[in-house]
Amino acid sequence: MILPIFLIFSLLSSTSNAAVQDFCVADLTGPDTPTGFVCKKPAAVTVDDFVFSGLGAGGNTSNIIKAAVTPAFADKFGGVNGLGISMARLDLAVGGVIPMHTHPGGSEVLIVVSGSICAGFISSDNKVYFKSLKKGDIMAFPRGLLHFQINAGGTPALAFVSFSSERPGLQILDFALFANDLPSEIIETTTFLDDAQVKKLKGVLGGTG
Amino acid sequence: MILPIFLIFSLLSSTSNAAVQDFCVADLTGPDTPTGFVCKKPAAVTVDDFVFSGLGAGGNTSNIIKAAVTPAFADKFGGVNGLGISMARLDLAVGGVIPMHTHPGGSEVLIVVSGSICAGFISSDNKVYFKSLKKGDIMAFPRGLLHFQINAGGTPALAFVSFSSERPGLQILDFALFANDLPSEIIETTTFLDDAQVKKLKGVLGGTG
Amino acid sequence: MILPIFLIFSLLSSTSNAAVQDFCVADLTGPDTPTGFVCKKPAAVTVDDFVFSGLGAGGNTSNIIKAAVTPAFADKFGGVNGLGISMARLDLAVGGVIPMHTHPGGSEVLIVVSGSICAGFISSDNKVYFKSLKKGDIMAFPRGLLHFQINAGGTPALAFVSFSSERPGLQILDFALFANDLPSEIIETTTFLDDAQVKKLKGVLGGTG
Amino acid sequence: MILPIFLIFSLLSSTSNAAVQDFCVADLTGPDTPTGFVCKKPAAVTVDDFVFSGLGAGGNTSNIIKAAVTPAFADKFGGVNGLGISMARLDLAVGGVIPMHTHPGGSEVLIVVSGSICAGFISSDNKVYFKSLKKGDIMAFPRGLLHFQINAGGTPALAFVSFSSERPGLQILDFALFANDLPSEIIETTTFLDDAQVKKLKGVLGGTG
Amino acid sequence: MILPIFLIFSLLSSTSNAAVQDFCVADLTGPDTPTGFVCKKPAAVTVDDFVFSGLGAGGNTSNIIKAAVTPAFADKFGGVNGLGISMARLDLAVGGVIPMHTHPGGSEVLIVVSGSICAGFISSDNKVYFKSLKKGDIMAFPRGLLHFQINAGGTPALAFVSFSSERPGLQILDFALFANDLPSEIIETTTFLDDAQVKKLKGVLGGTG
Amino acid sequence: MILPIFLIFSLLSSTSNAAVQDFCVADLTGPDTPTGFVCKKPAAVTVDDFVFSGLGAGGNTSNIIKAAVTPAFADKFGGVNGLGISMARLDLAVGGVIPMHTHPGGSEVLIVVSGSICAGFISSDNKVYFKSLKKGDIMAFPRGLLHFQINAGGTPALAFVSFSSERPGLQILDFALFANDLPSEIIETTTFLDDAQVKKLKGVLGGTG
Repeated sequence: MILPIFLIFSLLSSTSNAAVQDFCVADLTGPDTPTGFVCKKPAAVTVDDFVFSGLGAGGNTSNIIKAAVTPAFADKFGGVNGLGISMARLDLAVGGVIPMHTHPGGSEVLIVVSGSICAGFISSDNKVYFKSLKKGDIMAFPRGLLHFQINAGGTPALAFVSFSSERPGLQILDFALFANDLPSEIIETTTFLDDAQVKKLKGVLGGTG
Repeated sequence: MILPIFLIFSLLSSTSNAAVQDFCVADLTGPDTPTGFVCKKPAAVTVDDFVFSGLGAGGNTSNIIKAAVTPAFADKFGGVNGLGISMARLDLAVGGVIPMHTHPGGSEVLIVVSGSICAGFISSDNKVYFKSLKKGDIMAFPRGLLHFQINAGGTPALAFVSFSSERPGLQILDFALFANDLPSEIIETTTFLDDAQVKKLKGVLGGTG
Repeated sequence: MILPIFLIFSLLSSTSNAAVQDFCVADLTGPDTPTGFVCKKPAAVTVDDFVFSGLGAGGNTSNIIKAAVTPAFADKFGGVNGLGISMARLDLAVGGVIPMHTHPGGSEVLIVVSGSICAGFISSDNKVYFKSLKKGDIMAFPRGLLHFQINAGGTPALAFVSFSSERPGLQILDFALFANDLPSEIIETTTFLDDAQVKKLKGVLGGTG
Repeated sequence: MILPIFLIFSLLSSTSNAAVQDFCVADLTGPDTPTGFVCKKPAAVTVDDFVFSGLGAGGNTSNIIKAAVTPAFADKFGGVNGLGISMARLDLAVGGVIPMHTHPGGSEVLIVVSGSICAGFISSDNKVYFKSLKKGDIMAFPRGLLHFQINAGGTPALAFVSFSSERPGLQILDFALFANDLPSEIIETTTFLDDAQVKKLKGVLGGTG
Repeated sequence: MILPIFLIFSLLSSTSNAAVQDFCVADLTGPDTPTGFVCKKPAAVTVDDFVFSGLGAGGNTSNIIKAAVTPAFADKFGGVNGLGISMARLDLAVGGVIPMHTHPGGSEVLIVVSGSICAGFISSDNKVYFKSLKKGDIMAFPRGLLHFQINAGGTPALAFVSFSSERPGLQILDFALFANDLPSEIIETTTFLDDAQVKKLKGVLGGTG
Repeated sequence: MILPIFLIFSLLSSTSNAAVQDFCVADLTGPDTPTGFVCKKPAAVTVDDFVFSGLGAGGNTSNIIKAAVTPAFADKFGGVNGLGISMARLDLAVGGVIPMHTHPGGSEVLIVVSGSICAGFISSDNKVYFKSLKKGDIMAFPRGLLHFQINAGGTPALAFVSFSSERPGLQILDFALFANDLPSEIIETTTFLDDAQVKKLKGVLGGTG
């Protein structure tokens, strides 16, 4: 009776890790590729690569936006590398706001877990889609479009967002324009903003040039 | 001063809905395609296509699995059609379990919102990855692999799951085997289950043949 | 001798249009799908579906940006539907500028055909990449990132841009913010712009709310 | 005891055909899309959509190439629509040859079932990869590259080929050049072939112009 | 006359291996990536990388399933790495069965080369599609769905299967459940199987826990 | 006032290069993968990785085809690695011709910048699509199909072509057949060309065997 068991396993002998690649846990010590990090050796993979506890606690909202974004992308949460999905946690204190931003690499779905959030996006033909969301509501934000979230109530709001990419990117408009060394003249020429406005926001956000 | 405004808009005249397709809200009255439903006419799209409130209330857990899955896939939540992402809500009463199942069309990430959940998956090389998750923990389940979730505490558990597809599918093992007309002889031959076991579960789940 | 010829063609009988789908010319009268327009009937397709003359003449640059974008996307140039590529023509008069914008659906490569252009983009980590390009230079702009082009010389500039999508989209920052009915309060909250600045640009660009 | 069964099925109520799309059987009466035919209504799908018997009999090899290609692409074998795979049968009589050709839409793997076949392909850097294959050997032909198969033995040869696309296309070099109305002058200019050679093959293959 | 030849080749100088990448033969000594193994150096690639003889002989069917699966996936047949296709050989002795299983990573097409096979799959909405296949019949199995093959005749059966992925994976239901250390209690809770049944199959298949 | 600034940046701390991957500039010193070269370290990337000046000057057309192709693929123009787009420059002297060829890996769009060009392609069902293009015209060539470009005027012609892949490949028919060691007998068998024709072109193009 022992014999058949081993014979069965000969069927499995080719079903090694190399043969199947169910997953590709990120190995941050190796090179990056156009489709994600190279894979950790299968023998080194454990369940902890697929579990992440970093979204359990709220981010620090003691800042001028009174909000925090805590991501669980493939660089932190290696198990999603190559799977085409990732998450983040949004904490919005009273008055908090996630400023106008885009995710160049993926679409997003948000679920409100507590509080209420006014969220919206703008399409390529400049139409605005926004709504006040209550606990349990979900909203989709198509890839690459400008969007925002604002705490719409009198209590802190908590939401979780999921992305259709393990590294969706995050380009916050004000930081892209005012928190680097992009010359003010170029900003003004390409956005029609007044010089005083540009310099004021560079002052707040640490931009130079 | 009116003139320049209109001239600017000539720049936009080609940025019509036909030109850009930021999104493709599902039109369930038209044909389905290999990559999703055909699109609702852009003029008919409103913010409500991107917002879904169906996950706000818990599903009915008064059943033998003491659990409920409430999906927000593209057929119900048209805004995610073509975006490569969707969600579902899992309610597990005390003792509740989401039985062994797969999503043939997408990977999954689960976040525990209340209670605790023992979740796991099995890889192609038959290695088991499972862990007890507490509130705030997230876990990834790679595409197509058998996995399960069990309420691991003494209180009801709530989780939200996201998928890397707007229609990830859901194949529940017991229903696939025992809730249809697949002949018992075929089931027994292909699963090594005993005849009595097969017939017992067919009885519970309504299978024939 | 006639016989063998017909016999050969029997080999081809299965190589009908339905079998192969080398291309899928856009049929704008049918439904749109997540991956492009449905296909024109093969029998109706001619070489003219694959040739487009609309980029031969410069766009009208008598506007406040002194520039014009003339696209050849799948809605106008049906032959590229489903091929993952499209083009546009940029005309920049002296002093002309293509304002800060993104293409949510594709990466871009630009080639300067006459004049010189200062072009740049900003990455998700807020680093600025910009350079003055001379005739014959090409520059790549990764998908979804904010970028701009400015005539950098004393003569009109002409460039052609190609996209990695047949409908890459075009979201011009100022139009997204100021040329629709997005409430000023939301704009100000999510961009930190001053109320006067927002109202001034809404006035220029026709925004309400 | 009846009650629990129905309660379980409430879990499944959302797992309708619209929700999951495990497959998309080709509906040839509807429009074609860039990613395949629109889907047959789920209720009309039967196991026969997934089974095809057309490769069971050899094609007619009484022609000048002494060979036959019998495809099972999505237009004939609707079940593979959208699945990214298809098959064809190759019959090569003694002396038979599948002339130099490409599949613009997919890679190929061939398995020799009887006889022996000399098969090869040429890479973009003009390197030739060819070998004589015996029964049971498999060979891969990367997408889009020129390749050929020749009966290498004294008995009829049979092979099955699979493609990484449900409609891989088939461009046979001689038919592309000599079996249509492409002007001889253009052929000669773009291939360096002599006028007499071009006209001779046009005569054999029915070309005009 | 020598001169023009060399001049022509200057045209080709940029068509190096680095420029084109017609293929990416698996280099098993390098890292794995989300989309396959890194590539063997082009200079080291020969026709033997694209030819595999391992499917020429039948697998050993002297086991309790009286069947054998011999795969030609990218880890063994390096030439298909990145091409989105692979093959396997199925040998079913009289009474042989390929037990209920899934391929998480790809769809499958099977062709019966000798004997007859009863094959079937179960969709997400629990509908069963099965049929008895004779020599020459082909059948498609959509990605990720449970399916099986049983020798349906009185002679050994041989089939070749192709997959829409170079590493489709193979999750055999019984091995996933009973051939590892997944605790019996979890199995029973998530499958409704009786404790005796679980322990019996663990005994046969070597499971612990 | 300094404090809030630093607090804002804590929001950005997770938006590192590892988290987002807006781009993946080719690192030619590392391994190649099925989807492109591994990525240069983000810290080493500069704007010059995204700018390429190699198309600014015409290629040498003093050869027997009186034409030159100058590519800007990912191996030369590292910034497009992973972006799904690339370019090339075509120079056609009077009487110049880009011989019949395919790009196995991508579709093409051509724009005529000076002169006039007769361009065409042949579909899988052997239909010819060709037209004389004037300055400013663009033409699409679907992936993998045979196509050609001929200077159709009395002056040099210049065109730029874009591809839907960063490494589209380039298989020139005559070089594939006559500029390597493919045995003449195989060429003749698979193309029906006369022995004298094959040997003549092998002589011109340097082929052996």
